[in-house]
Order: sequence, then structure tokens, then C-alpha cells
Amino acid sequence: MLQLSIDPDLPVPLVEQIVQAVRHQVDDRILRPGMRLPPIRKLAQTQQISRFTVVEAYDRLVALGYLQSRRGSGFYVAPQRVPTPSRQRPVIAEQAVDVAWLMRQALDDSPDVLKASAGWLPAEWLDQEGLRRHLRTLGRRADARVTSYGSAQGYLPLRQQLQIRLAEFGIGAPPEQILLTHGATQALDIAARHLLKPGDTVFVDDPGYFNFFGNLRLIGAKLVGVPRGADGPDIDTLEALLEIHRPKVFFTHSVLHNPTGANLSPAAAFRLLQLANRHDFLVIEDDTYADLHPHATTRLANLDQLDRVIYVGSFTKTLSGSLRVGFMAARPDLIAQFTDVKTLTAVSSSEFTEQLVYQMLTDGHYRKYVERLHGRLAQASADALRLLERLGMEVFLEPKGGLFLWGRAPHIEDSAPLASRAAEARIMLAPGKVFRPQMQASPWLRFNVAFSSEPRLERFLDEAFARA
Amino acid sequence: MLQLSIDPDLPVPLVEQIVQAVRHQVDDRILRPGMRLPPIRKLAQTQQISRFTVVEAYDRLVALGYLQSRRGSGFYVAPQRVPTPSRQRPVIAEQAVDVAWLMRQALDDSPDVLKASAGWLPAEWLDQEGLRRHLRTLGRRADARVTSYGSAQGYLPLRQQLQIRLAEFGIGAPPEQILLTHGATQALDIAARHLLKPGDTVFVDDPGYFNFFGNLRLIGAKLVGVPRGADGPDIDTLEALLEIHRPKVFFTHSVLHNPTGANLSPAAAFRLLQLANRHDFLVIEDDTYADLHPHATTRLANLDQLDRVIYVGSFTKTLSGSLRVGFMAARPDLIAQFTDVKTLTAVSSSEFTEQLVYQMLTDGHYRKYVERLHGRLAQASADALRLLERLGMEVFLEPKGGLFLWGRAPHIEDSAPLASRAAEARIMLAPGKVFRPQMQASPWLRFNVAFSSEPRLERFLDEAFARA
Repeated sequence: MLQLSIDPDLPVPLVEQIVQAVRHQVDDRILRPGMRLPPIRKLAQTQQISRFTVVEAYDRLVALGYLQSRRGSGFYVAPQRVPTPSRQRPVIAEQAVDVAWLMRQALDDSPDVLKASAGWLPAEWLDQEGLRRHLRTLGRRADARVTSYGSAQGYLPLRQQLQIRLAEFGIGAPPEQILLTHGATQALDIAARHLLKPGDTVFVDDPGYFNFFGNLRLIGAKLVGVPRGADGPDIDTLEALLEIHRPKVFFTHSVLHNPTGANLSPAAAFRLLQLANRHDFLVIEDDTYADLHPHATTRLANLDQLDRVIYVGSFTKTLSGSLRVGFMAARPDLIAQFTDVKTLTAVSSSEFTEQLVYQMLTDGHYRKYVERLHGRLAQASADALRLLERLGMEVFLEPKGGLFLWGRAPHIEDSAPLASRAAEARIMLAPGKVFRPQMQASPWLRFNVAFSSEPRLERFLDEAFARA
Repeated sequence: MLQLSIDPDLPVPLVEQIVQAVRHQVDDRILRPGMRLPPIRKLAQTQQISRFTVVEAYDRLVALGYLQSRRGSGFYVAPQRVPTPSRQRPVIAEQAVDVAWLMRQALDDSPDVLKASAGWLPAEWLDQEGLRRHLRTLGRRADARVTSYGSAQGYLPLRQQLQIRLAEFGIGAPPEQILLTHGATQALDIAARHLLKPGDTVFVDDPGYFNFFGNLRLIGAKLVGVPRGADGPDIDTLEALLEIHRPKVFFTHSVLHNPTGANLSPAAAFRLLQLANRHDFLVIEDDTYADLHPHATTRLANLDQLDRVIYVGSFTKTLSGSLRVGFMAARPDLIAQFTDVKTLTAVSSSEFTEQLVYQMLTDGHYRKYVERLHGRLAQASADALRLLERLGMEVFLEPKGGLFLWGRAPHIEDSAPLASRAAEARIMLAPGKVFRPQMQASPWLRFNVAFSSEPRLERFLDEAFARA
């Protein structure tokens, strides 16, 4: 029998008081499965409350799985409360170190895991309060578009805003040449699906962005690595590889290259585009980390003006990984085809989160906020550089900005076993192997400078290198 | 020279006053490209306002493309305002009627287009105020997760909620067997990409959900249609087709079948699953319209309990197409593989919009709201049935709920030219052809009952049929 004492003077809403009382009594087995609850009218009378209050409380309890509604008969305690322990997926350290493994680990949100391998900023560095403010604003605006699918190419004001931003990089792209996507990864996926068929050859940076390598393998593409130096892809090697292979696409990262942090030099950019013309391949330029670079720098799309270059960007790194807003800019004919692929595979992107990103970009705070991130990252990078030096690691180069340091572990040939051992200690490391197109052994590790200041990282690596 | 009269007593914020003044003067060519704006300090002094106010206004103007900031030199009117007319993509009536065409038209949000072909409810039927209320609530909650990528499988509380909801359909699926996706379409896409390679045979409903046919063609699958009757797929024909073909997957729609509105009978479900076992194929059961069905009805996953059935659902139809929240439930081994495909192709789904859906499902209003939709749809369906009768159209069946009526146009063999002519009159019709796996000519049309009450639809069809 339900025991209920409702107090209208409490600050807790009446609906909530009923919900809590029933939940506790079901959890404590005072109300047992199958027991009937007082009819709505009766409970409202005895408690002197509105029937709507009882209906809303019962409906919430049904939604929460505590009650069941039987048509025409009333509400009953649900037959068995489904046990739904919110346990974390255990970190399986024995598991083979591969791309999917690394991504799963990175997305594991157990609070005790140190994510020295993450590809993003810590949540507390981001403008969470700004986002929340815009949520409230959108929630008050009757003209906010919260339910419609939106257009196939994505929210027009954001595409117009991107035109302005790309113009600052010297890239001319009207809104018609911009397609909004579910993060940069969907943009890369759409391009790859449209341009490649199983067996096709793709050139990639070696080392390069591992998650997209996994994507290309899923499509059945043949990956050929082009060695990556401090100035960009090694163009002499690229030229030699083009004697042997006929790639459809070269997928590369120009600014704050993942994982090395290196930029592309104008000379390398020019030679790369000349080769693309001569050998008739397209270039996918991933510029995900664009806004983390404090200065102007060379982009392929700036030279090429979206003739052979498909440019991909994102707001995941500076605004929110949760909103999943990315974009691509390309030739009109390609954008038309990519739009159809997007429609067939995902219908549309979220116009709602696109509005939110548009608000964040245009409220006048974004530039200052990003400058603060630059300063904070520069400090973290200096600290992490000193850490790697103390540990006796070789650093590939001192990046001009961004998240990453690429460090070589001393005395070992393959950093993958080290990453496995680190996972046991709940430290996530990104071993060089996963950044290589054929998963070749590598002594390198990628560090995220924003996550590298915890002393237990230094302790772990110090001990590990001493043992090696 | 900037003309500025700021009034602190106006209800418009000071920042906004500056922004508006500059915008108007740039638009009216009073401020011309290249002109320098007053330095921040000076403007703050002359107007007796805070420097922060000026900084914020200038930053917004930069973000809006009106100004340019030159490091160390100040703010200038941008060299040329990029013309960004917000023109709609014209309705190209001559274009071949195909799947992508239909989707593009459906997503065209020109207000004067009558979307008799849409696959969703009108925005004003949805609980927009409920969504806005939850936006405001999330915006006030410090624990709302607005920036993190979230876990690979999706927001756990929503998966727990789905376990409860699927249990109501008699489907046992713990959160570990549920993967959240970017709408149901991404769920279908992930399953298809993982299970199929180019050249593989897939059985599909004929007629069936056209957008997924386009997706399967993109993957290179061979589509074989299984005729769809009032009780589900024609099982005798299915059996005969299995003598000739070896499908990897049968993709089908059990409840409120798109486009016919028919349900699956228990007997057809049982025989279909027996054949799946004997011929060793998997079944993808698309249940996108589940919540629009007012009564309990048969599902394959209810009989099979996710052994051979991959179950796909969505909140797009009842909550919002813009949030893009869908899900799939399947065997643990398949869910693990699908999760990896999701990670490689999209990293994660939006944890933010998943929280919003969770709030909408559990605040105690969802059941009542959906019941209201049922009532409203029943009324609209009755009206639309009468309309088709008046027009002399044959109706496939009277559905038990949902959005669709499947009607046969009199005196014609192919409804595609009719749809082209309708597009010229800014009426979007969904011709039967696009619902057929080989795009065979068809005299049928799909109507969305919620969009079919406008008199100009009846007028157009009346005239068109009289001409035929």
C-alpha cells in the first residue's frame, strides 16, 4: 500500500514528491511488483491535489520503468525492475592495440583514466558557460528551429559565416560550396565513400590521423604512406611513389599536423599541388585544428582555391565534441554529389546544433576565447616539452601551437607494449604504430599537452624507460 | 567617419547598438571598405562606455564579416562585403525523378511548397515548447554534458531508458546491446556497411523505404524486391526467391510500413524468421514509426529476441528531426562491431542531443503527447481517405495509424511524370517508382495525411486525373 505524505510547502514540486516516494517504496520493496496503485481520482482526493499532478507523476514513473499502465485498469508496479547497473566498460589491457581500441579508450569517460592520448581539449578548458547561455537563449526564442530536419546542405547562416571565416584564410567558398556535416569525420567519410571504391589507392601522411586510416580500410582502400617531415609531406618521396602508384586521393593534414604538430611550408604545398595536377589526383585537406593555430600559415586550399582540394574543418576542438558540427568546402560539382551521399547515409545534419555553433561564433566572444586557448596551450606545451626532455625522449619538433607533441621513447623499437602496460595503470597513451598506415612498429608516442601535467604520467614513463 | 549616438536608456544592449549602427553605415556605404574605425580606447572615451563593450561589438562585427582586425593596427571596414543572398535552391522540375531528387525536395524548406510527400509530421504538430523548456533547463544545469564527445555507444541513461521501452514491446535488450546513432538512417547505414560488400544480395520490401535503397546502391549491393502485401512480405514469393538468391540481409519494415502503412501479421513474422534460419540471413527491422502506432502489434524482434534481427528505431518522428537521435539493438557481438564502425566513420553521436531526448522521454509528458498525436493523425487520415476516394483513387489499405496512405492514381501507368508536374506547381508528391528497388514504373503515390488537407492538392490532382 502506497504511503504518501505530500507537503505543498516544500520547495520540491508535488509531482517530484510523488515520484520520489513511489521510487523509494519500490526500491525498498514496500511496493511490490504487480501491486496496484491508488486510482488517479482517489489519490488526488485524499491528498487534496490536482488530478493532473497525479497523472504527470504516474506518467513519469511509467517512463522511468517503475510503473506500468494497463489500459482501463490503472497503474501497477512494474513486474520486475530491470537491473541497469551503470558500470563502466572495463579497460581491457590485453586487447590488441589497434585503431578502434585507441578510440574506444579515448572515449571511455571513467574519471580516473588519464587521457594523455586524447585528441581534444579537457572539457573544463572549453567555454561551457557560453554554450549553456546560448542554450537558454535558444530555449527562449520562438523562432529557434528545434524540430525540422533542416536543408540538405545545412543551416544557411552558418555556411555564410564559414564563407567569411574561410575568406580570412584566403579561401574563396560561397555557401553553395560548403556542406555541413556531423563532425569532420563524417565529412572525410562522405568524401572517401564518394571518391573511392574497394581496391583504390589512397596516399596518406605517415604518420597520420589514425581514425581515418581505419575508415579507409573499412572502405577497402589501399593505403600508401608518404613520409611526413617538419615541412610537410616529403615531396621527393611522393614523386617517386607516383612512379609506382596511381592514387585517386591524397589525404593530408596541413596545419598542426596530427600527430607531429608540424605545418606545411609554401614550397612543399606548391610542389604537392603541381604533382596533383600532373598525376590527376584530388587532395583532401583536413584542417580540424585550424583555430588552435595562433598565426597565419599555409594551406593547400589557399593556393588551389578548391579546384583539386577538398577542404575539411570542424568546431569540435574549440567549441564542443558533443555538438558534432563539421564541414567541407569543395568544387560545386563535388559538393552536389557529397550532398546526395550525406542525404542517403544520414538524411541531414543537426540544424539545431548548427544554430548553436552559429551563435557561439557570432556573439563576439569567440576570437578572444580562442586567443586565451592559444596562451594556455603554449604554456602547457612548454611544460610538456620539459617533461619529455627530463624523460630523455627525443621530440620531433616544437610545434607552433595546438595539442600535440610527438616524442620518441628511448631504447625501444615499438611503443605499443608500453601503451598496453600504461592502460593497466589507467593511463591512455597513443602509440606510434596506430598512426602508421600499415601499423608498422614505431618507437614514437603522441602526447596531448593539455593532459600531460599529471605527475603520475611522469612517474609511469620514468619507471617504464628505466626498465627498458 | 563613424556616426554613433549611443543611448544607455534604450532597452537594446549597448553592444547591439554599436553593431547595428556600424552594420547600417556599412550597408549604406557611409562607411566604405578599407576605412579605419575609431580605436577602442577612443570610442569608449567619447561615448563614455566601457572598453569591453567596444571590444565585444567590434569582435561581433568581425565575426559578421563587416570589419577586419589588423594586428597592432586596429579595425577596418572589410574590403568587400561578400554577397550572400539567402536564395532557395530552385525547384528543378525537369530533373529526373529519383531518390536523391525526392529527398532534396522534401528537405527544401521554402514555405510555399506543399509537402504532400514528406516522411514526417509538420513542425507545428511537435512539442516544440517542451523541447525549448528542456533547452533552458539544460542551460541552467552545471552537470549538463555539453562539450564532451561522450561514450562510443552513446549516453547511458538514454540506453537504459530504451531498455525499458523495448521491454514494453517484448524485446529484451540491455543497454550493452543498444547503440545510439545519428538518426535511424545512420543505424541502417552502419549495419549495411558492416554486413555487406559490393555485389552482395539484399532482399528489400517492394515497395519499400526509398532512401535506404539509395544507400544500398551506394554500397554496391544488389537489391531484390519481395512483394509487400497487407500482412507483410509475401512469404510464398520470398520462399521462391530464396531458391534463386542467397541474400545476406533482408531489410524490412514491420509496423506502419513505409509507404503502404500496413503491419506485419504474426504468421508472416514466424514464417519469415523460419526462412531466415534455414537460409542463414539476417533481418534488419526498421521500426522508425513505432510510436505513431496506437496499439500493440507484432514485431520480428519480439519473436526472435535479437538473435537474427537487428532492430532500428528513432525519435525523429515524434520528437525532432533536427536532434538526429536514433538507435539500434542487436546481438552483443554485432553491437560491438557496429560500435567500431560508428567510431571509425563518425567518432560519436551527439551526447548533447541524446540528453535532450532522454529528458523529453522521462519528464512524464511523452505518453500523453504521443496519444494526442495518434488522435490527430486518425482524424487527418480519415480526411485524406475521403479525399482519395473523391479523386477516384484506389487505396491500398486503411492503416491502423501513422503518416501514410498509399493510393493508386487512376488511368496511368507511371506516377513520376505527375510528380514532376506537381513540382512545377510547388506540390511535392512521392511517386511509386522511387519506392521500388529497380525504379520500375508504378501508378501509386504515397501521401502524408498530415499535409494532405490543403485544397490546392485536391485541385491539382483533380485536374491532372481529368487530363489523364
